[in-house]
Amino acid sequence: MRDFIFNVSTKILFGRDQMKNLAKEIKNYGSRVLLSYGGGSIKRSGLYDEIIKIFEENNIFYKELSGIEPNPRVESAREGVKILKENDLDFILAVGGGSVIDLSKLVAGAVFLDCDPWDIVIRKAKIEKALPIGTILTLAATGSEMDAGGVITNPETKQKLAFGSPYTLPKFSILNPEITYTVNAKHTAAGVADIMSHTMENYFTLKDGAYMQNRLAEGILKTCIHYGPIAMAEPENYEARSNIMWASSWAINGLLSTGKATPWSVHPMEHELSAFYDITHGIGLAILTPRFLSYILNEDTVDMIRDFGVNVFGVEPSEDKFNDAKKAIANLHKFFEQDMNIPMTLGEVGIDDKKLEEMAEAAARHSGGSIKGVVELKKDDILEIYKASL
Amino acid sequence: MRDFIFNVSTKILFGRDQMKNLAKEIKNYGSRVLLSYGGGSIKRSGLYDEIIKIFEENNIFYKELSGIEPNPRVESAREGVKILKENDLDFILAVGGGSVIDLSKLVAGAVFLDCDPWDIVIRKAKIEKALPIGTILTLAATGSEMDAGGVITNPETKQKLAFGSPYTLPKFSILNPEITYTVNAKHTAAGVADIMSHTMENYFTLKDGAYMQNRLAEGILKTCIHYGPIAMAEPENYEARSNIMWASSWAINGLLSTGKATPWSVHPMEHELSAFYDITHGIGLAILTPRFLSYILNEDTVDMIRDFGVNVFGVEPSEDKFNDAKKAIANLHKFFEQDMNIPMTLGEVGIDDKKLEEMAEAAARHSGGSIKGVVELKKDDILEIYKASL
Repeated sequence: MRDFIFNVSTKILFGRDQMKNLAKEIKNYGSRVLLSYGGGSIKRSGLYDEIIKIFEENNIFYKELSGIEPNPRVESAREGVKILKENDLDFILAVGGGSVIDLSKLVAGAVFLDCDPWDIVIRKAKIEKALPIGTILTLAATGSEMDAGGVITNPETKQKLAFGSPYTLPKFSILNPEITYTVNAKHTAAGVADIMSHTMENYFTLKDGAYMQNRLAEGILKTCIHYGPIAMAEPENYEARSNIMWASSWAINGLLSTGKATPWSVHPMEHELSAFYDITHGIGLAILTPRFLSYILNEDTVDMIRDFGVNVFGVEPSEDKFNDAKKAIANLHKFFEQDMNIPMTLGEVGIDDKKLEEMAEAAARHSGGSIKGVVELKKDDILEIYKASL
Repeated sequence: MRDFIFNVSTKILFGRDQMKNLAKEIKNYGSRVLLSYGGGSIKRSGLYDEIIKIFEENNIFYKELSGIEPNPRVESAREGVKILKENDLDFILAVGGGSVIDLSKLVAGAVFLDCDPWDIVIRKAKIEKALPIGTILTLAATGSEMDAGGVITNPETKQKLAFGSPYTLPKFSILNPEITYTVNAKHTAAGVADIMSHTMENYFTLKDGAYMQNRLAEGILKTCIHYGPIAMAEPENYEARSNIMWASSWAINGLLSTGKATPWSVHPMEHELSAFYDITHGIGLAILTPRFLSYILNEDTVDMIRDFGVNVFGVEPSEDKFNDAKKAIANLHKFFEQDMNIPMTLGEVGIDDKKLEEMAEAAARHSGGSIKGVVELKKDDILEIYKASL
């Protein structure tokens, strides 16, 4: 196990009845709030009105940053910084899924820097302090509610890149599983695929002795596999929604990667798909992951993939470990396709072969020449994985 | 799943090379340190000298509270408070296992209250603030390095009771698995049994829908079962020591009990054994747990115990679920007895039948009349479990 520091101080307020604590939690940090949200679903659900009422009853001044996109764009961060500065705000309440929270983190750091927010994402500038952030999560997927990072899209440069800073870890996050009752089957499936992908990116590593972390990762994968189909069939099943929501936080808050080197593989490949075609991130991850695992299956990785099959899908171990590993991959593919009803080819989400080469080149370039994950992937490797996913 | 708040902000510095950060971490909080430790093993190992050198090089003033007992006694807390007040200290560095850290937490809270420290333990006084604490862990067992509670013994009243306060959560903990290389086989086994007991106290609950938490608990149990015997046979096996050490923190830091009601059962019974006979806590837990599970096995609990056997020990599920559950219990007993070489009867640790009645009465009384765990245990139930353990 490698040396590591684990320091995740986000206070999680989980359950049906936590909004009563919202004003008190905000007032630990500030009283002039930027309320950031997305396309208005929080207005339809009544959550927006509930928040505004709490603000008014508690003399909390607020301004709004609305319309944050599903793949959040740097323009929204520029607008957020402008609103913060013009109104001398001291706290950000991000209400939404990962995109809203990710974007809010960039705003929280950018407001203290005399540069364009995009400079932070491309590492021209570094966050040295940030406004405190609280979140109210409306979609279980990215884990942004309990981690310090985010992913931002720049449509002009066709880039979708990750950034992070310890200063942008949320101070608190309110997780009410009931809020996710209105998430439709497609986005529930995409969220579960995203949680599973985070878990697998942390799980698929070689010979690092992080046994406990891998057993915990398997527990999270089993949770997603058990409750994903239930949440799709019964959107108001509290047990399913609560398990998926809590899993979203632990898949990516850092516990699963403690003691390991976990440079990710599938996310950098998927980011090009959604940067070029604006597809749903979780769907892209589901499509690519089984093809990625098939592509990297070799003498070095076979035990790792076989363990995944045995411990997560109950594959019966046989003499033929390659066959066991292939069964593991087939189980994963089948789970996404049949149990979660995810379109499992790029063609079904509107991606043909025209830009595969360009995307593969970009994926390699954005990872510094090649993706250095559990197995190094150069441009041609990435292209093969894209082609296998058509 | 029940509503909950999870807020574990302890910064964990894990690995071989973290002492370099000690002075910086302390100076985030203070510069006049109470150095608390136990019986002097840290002097034999060289850790004491290393710490003093760091203090001297960084102009950190310090006073010592030494000789804290394995079942820490309230007298030590009184002494600690006196040293703190006389020297105007502003930080406590607890170097040791759970007993040293537990005692230090009581001192940290008691110094701000005008009462005897024991009043806190018996809930006559309440901690409202506390001095900041850092820890250097030398034994993987109690999880005190990442939780807010402690257990204190009062020899005069023959009481061993738990207390806790959010203010006494350690600010940071340094976990170096190499420090535990010198822990002998007996105490390694007792530590692993303690970690497993914490996990099982959180795991054995009924119908709460906390599926993910139970899968994570199984991951921690599998980690203990896998590495416990390795750490005993190869005390300098870093992989084994690091997995056990990291497991110790997660067994009890609150994650496994999120969303559940988890009043504990075996700990209150064991606390009387070590209050009356001063036996090693983890050994007492190992002896009692299989007898406890056998005693509570019934139509309500059979699925829970069977799941434990299937998911942790790989018991093949059969038509006869009671038999499967009995196999689970037998596997646990066999693991402690044969793989961990733990004496599995009270007789072997010097406890005969003379005080069983008195201890059973005390265990019930200290839990408010009866132990309200997964199954309620009255005095007579506790007595039966003690008798079955003779």
